Amino acid sequence: MSAAPPLANEKPSAAARDAAISELRTLLGERLSTAAAIRERHGKDESYHPSVPPDAVAFAQSTEEVSAIVKVCARHKVPVIPYATGTSLEGHVAALQGGVSIDLMQMNRIIEVNVDDLDCRVEPGVTRKELNEHLRDTGLFFPIDPGANASIGGMAATRASGTNAVRYGTMRENVLALTVVLADGRVIRTSKRARKSSAGYDLTRLFVGSEGTLGIITEITLRLYGIPAAISSAMCSFPSVKDAVDTVIQTIQTGIPVARIELADALQMKAINTYSKMTLPETPTLWLEFHGSEAAVAEQAEMVQTLAAEHGGTDFTWTTLPEDRKKLWQARHDAAYSNRTLRPGAELWATDVCVPISRLADCITETQKDLAGSFIPAPIVGHVGDGNFHLTLLLKPDDPREVAEAERINDRLVKRALAMDGTCTGEHGVGYGKLDFLIAEHGEAVSVMRAIKQALDPDNILNPGKIVRV
Amino acid sequence: MSAAPPLANEKPSAAARDAAISELRTLLGERLSTAAAIRERHGKDESYHPSVPPDAVAFAQSTEEVSAIVKVCARHKVPVIPYATGTSLEGHVAALQGGVSIDLMQMNRIIEVNVDDLDCRVEPGVTRKELNEHLRDTGLFFPIDPGANASIGGMAATRASGTNAVRYGTMRENVLALTVVLADGRVIRTSKRARKSSAGYDLTRLFVGSEGTLGIITEITLRLYGIPAAISSAMCSFPSVKDAVDTVIQTIQTGIPVARIELADALQMKAINTYSKMTLPETPTLWLEFHGSEAAVAEQAEMVQTLAAEHGGTDFTWTTLPEDRKKLWQARHDAAYSNRTLRPGAELWATDVCVPISRLADCITETQKDLAGSFIPAPIVGHVGDGNFHLTLLLKPDDPREVAEAERINDRLVKRALAMDGTCTGEHGVGYGKLDFLIAEHGEAVSVMRAIKQALDPDNILNPGKIVRV
Repeated sequence: MSAAPPLANEKPSAAARDAAISELRTLLGERLSTAAAIRERHGKDESYHPSVPPDAVAFAQSTEEVSAIVKVCARHKVPVIPYATGTSLEGHVAALQGGVSIDLMQMNRIIEVNVDDLDCRVEPGVTRKELNEHLRDTGLFFPIDPGANASIGGMAATRASGTNAVRYGTMRENVLALTVVLADGRVIRTSKRARKSSAGYDLTRLFVGSEGTLGIITEITLRLYGIPAAISSAMCSFPSVKDAVDTVIQTIQTGIPVARIELADALQMKAINTYSKMTLPETPTLWLEFHGSEAAVAEQAEMVQTLAAEHGGTDFTWTTLPEDRKKLWQARHDAAYSNRTLRPGAELWATDVCVPISRLADCITETQKDLAGSFIPAPIVGHVGDGNFHLTLLLKPDDPREVAEAERINDRLVKRALAMDGTCTGEHGVGYGKLDFLIAEHGEAVSVMRAIKQALDPDNILNPGKIVRV
Repeated sequence: MSAAPPLANEKPSAAARDAAISELRTLLGERLSTAAAIRERHGKDESYHPSVPPDAVAFAQSTEEVSAIVKVCARHKVPVIPYATGTSLEGHVAALQGGVSIDLMQMNRIIEVNVDDLDCRVEPGVTRKELNEHLRDTGLFFPIDPGANASIGGMAATRASGTNAVRYGTMRENVLALTVVLADGRVIRTSKRARKSSAGYDLTRLFVGSEGTLGIITEITLRLYGIPAAISSAMCSFPSVKDAVDTVIQTIQTGIPVARIELADALQMKAINTYSKMTLPETPTLWLEFHGSEAAVAEQAEMVQTLAAEHGGTDFTWTTLPEDRKKLWQARHDAAYSNRTLRPGAELWATDVCVPISRLADCITETQKDLAGSFIPAPIVGHVGDGNFHLTLLLKPDDPREVAEAERINDRLVKRALAMDGTCTGEHGVGYGKLDFLIAEHGEAVSVMRAIKQALDPDNILNPGKIVRV
């Protein structure tokens, strides 16, 4: 629906492509597909970006097979694009220069769980819900929750995070080691399984967030955590975004180890009420969660209640009962579904900036002013403990005037966040949707990224056209 | 005392070196020194590695000046080696190919402290104690404590950690952004100040731990934390290392947010008793610390007391009183000084491996068996929450037989750790002392490190001979 994606003029020749596909068919048999519907699906994520189908889709079943596929493609200089659940949001999986999509969803083994070490090793096609289902009897869990039931491989590749990051960190902090297939098909492991190490360059963190442009992740070693003995959840309404954010700032400064802090603005609350037939106050609202012992989570909820009251917080409710906690969070979970009620027939475009928390209230308030002058409704939710928030732009994708307006809002939003020393993407990644914003954010540092890309992928076959232009 | 360092045969020509020094003298005046004593000091860290002096020492006062120095050296292909407190331990500062040591200790400004954001930006010559002194009135602190009063720049460059890492992470988790002077003198900032970001390759984490081989760090943005409302400290003796480690494993699995867990073995306890004239049980001992509310730190200490008792722990004492906490920790702090009592006249060599915690008891016990057959005494301390421990080898450095024996012990220790999926260095770094161990640990991945090094420093002038051989 937006401007056409930046198709490169450096597609491989038809002969090279056909030769690679023919070799891959010999290698994979039925697991190499050129069916239009399958290609179409593999060129599209969940975002507003249109599908850009690959020439073929290879369904891989092992690291060795991914290596063999990459070797074939490298020989013919044909692009390879890793694909799993397709839940990314910035065109990450679009085959901008054609080539072969490597579908990793058949690599879905949980290879090992080391309970004493609080870690596990999984293949990239395992989803986060599958992993937590598998872990349940061990007393451990994996906390990173980006909303979608994304694959662990995709979450590592995009440096995903979500609601628990304020306490448990993002994929950056929770990936201990990776197995990666390089551009020439060689296989490396980036790290041993020790919790910490000063042994050389941090390749793990380099590949986390590299979106398939430096290598293809085929195994992930993750940190796990003990399921907390008790959980308390709280909810509170505020007169203004600033009051809500000031409560969050004080909560964190006080050292209260809050596990989640989510914010919704007034418009978002209105949508939730409409969708869920509730009568919650239609003012800025916080949801909070605390993990610890029974005594600790009660104390923490009460401490935050006091802080909230100092900032005009009303209707503070908190509970440790699973049934009531679920009800309390249901409103937050309904936010995503509720938005269409604000504008039936509209499509959703999720923006994604993150700023230092001292600037968060300003950033949201200025953005709301901007939106007040627009015909596109855009409720706001945020992982405010980290300073990360999303507008959900509700627009008619077939109307160029609407697309232009959405782009204008997003452009101004990103520039506002950068001016506040924030980032153009807190958790969704760059894909090809934010190439120019990346330059605006990092300046000369992008040349370092490009040098690394060229050193590790000299023929530019790994998900070309994403993160940095070569 | 050990084998001669691997001096490269690719030193710059005398003419190039003299031309660079002459230009730098024009640039810096008195702040460029070629005095033998100053050069000697700048070629030596606190380890057993001998001094390898640079040709000159440049005392820089700003990022712009570091950039200008690097530009001069780049033009003449003369090496540059960053230097601050000189407290590293693997020969990091040795001028293996000559060149210019850039002393950063005059860059010691604390540029900004953002209390609401819990972050600050400092120059590399600020030491961690200076920073915490400066922060005291803000209610915030910087938790990373590697023992030495190291510079923040050096701590970032070596990915340092220490006793608080089990709760607060290492420099990897606590550096938010860096200003870096590249090999050609260009200056980049690796990240904005947002808590999290998915905006491109993680250059921050790439430069953290790169030991001056990819760029020179001239500003560091750090995460800070609220000083806890209450702290409790505990100490407990155990029948065996395994009992102590099992207590630690259960503590972490239970989700008790312990801030420090330190272990000393029986020999270390004997040394402490001798040095400090105490009568502590000479059996494996844990020190623990908890940070939180008054109620929480009391509850946590009591929970661990119960766990310790289940594993044969005796003499469990805990306290929240500052005076008593200080006394309790004094024994642990005395460990470093106490070691010489075991062998008067001996020098110290600190080893540094880190293994998954499930293997820690095995790794320590097997190492103790190894040591039982050696004439070199080596007490053990460890940051056991992370699986990291150190032997302090006590040897006569002038006796080649002793040096060979120490090297044999260290070699077997590292191989044992690697076989347990651990790392050759938990927190000291590679320098030139662990080049071969790095290859043993990472295999093919070292070629990726080398490719990055060559892409970012094609003339190999940035601290050459460290981390990877080019």
